[in-house]
Amino acid sequence: MTLTIYGIAASRAIRPLWAAEELDLTYRHIKLHHAAPETKAPDYLRLNPNGTVPALEDDGLVLFESLAITLYLARTYGPSRLWPDDAADQARVLQWTLWAATEAEPPARQWFHHTAFLPPAERQPALAAAALQALGRRLAVLERHFADGRPHLLGDDFTVADLNLAAVLQRLKDLGGGDHPRLSAWHARCLARPAAQRAFALRQAG
Amino acid sequence: MTLTIYGIAASRAIRPLWAAEELDLTYRHIKLHHAAPETKAPDYLRLNPNGTVPALEDDGLVLFESLAITLYLARTYGPSRLWPDDAADQARVLQWTLWAATEAEPPARQWFHHTAFLPPAERQPALAAAALQALGRRLAVLERHFADGRPHLLGDDFTVADLNLAAVLQRLKDLGGGDHPRLSAWHARCLARPAAQRAFALRQAG
Repeated sequence: MTLTIYGIAASRAIRPLWAAEELDLTYRHIKLHHAAPETKAPDYLRLNPNGTVPALEDDGLVLFESLAITLYLARTYGPSRLWPDDAADQARVLQWTLWAATEAEPPARQWFHHTAFLPPAERQPALAAAALQALGRRLAVLERHFADGRPHLLGDDFTVADLNLAAVLQRLKDLGGGDHPRLSAWHARCLARPAAQRAFALRQAG
Repeated sequence: MTLTIYGIAASRAIRPLWAAEELDLTYRHIKLHHAAPETKAPDYLRLNPNGTVPALEDDGLVLFESLAITLYLARTYGPSRLWPDDAADQARVLQWTLWAATEAEPPARQWFHHTAFLPPAERQPALAAAALQALGRRLAVLERHFADGRPHLLGDDFTVADLNLAAVLQRLKDLGGGDHPRLSAWHARCLARPAAQRAFALRQAG
């Protein structure tokens, strides 16, 4: 088995890196920057036709889309509770993963772009503010979801749904998370996991 | 079994409706408008805490996120090729579904909002144009993907990945699809399916 993850940890590659750490996998990490010219070269476009990171290679299988890669790793490599056994729980994992992609990520990304990512001259404060407002409605949904005291999205167990959503909301503190105590506690719980710590430490390692 | 789909066909509910038709399921269709006050009522928020459509109820299981609902239906109700048997193909279905959600839908939605959905005074032509440009890059990725002559995303078989992406790109003709002959042919092939025709006909039925 040669499992290879392409993309620096300071990119969406943090998601598959975190999943690989949760599953104690041995993997090769190709630290490709998201803006590197290599991402547009034919060899890489065969792995990810979008010319973005991350990409995964696993014994002939090639995948893009970070959240699909974590689902693949969780489903393939066990035993773990990252991917639950119960079919209804599996449906809920897919539901929350899609929710992370469609509801949480777009405003989180718009906010990040217009506060930090873009060159200052291109940042639009009105778009940053609108993103924060849109995100507030989603954070309120999550806060209500955790109102029953459940430690994780599906209940007791940490699953790949928690990993995906917590990674998408990695800047939760800056995104108004402080007004949502149960959501913040869940987020802190996810990021405190040893596997998360190891994955995020890869950012410091360069 | 009481399978219930909430949401008028002229909403993202078209996705689960199409999937249910592909799978020849018997279902109850609650024609809830996406802007109806009932979507914010406690009874409905228990089904979909976002207060949006669609939602699914199936023998005690409750789900939101249209693309997760189609995945659930395809995985649960067989036999069909909507959900492939092969694990690598299943990973590809999830990849293309996430790609539909993260790459295709945001610009397609931004374009629709600023050309048709919002009241005329709120539409911003610059945002519509930017959306079309962003979408153009994604359509080019798809056109290259179909360059080998494959009839569907994964190869020979129509899967729930095709359903999800074709539904997200339902306005492809207006989105510059005409410049992409293989992509357009794939899209027409998907929408010509009898199940798609039955689902889209529900829009006329009101």
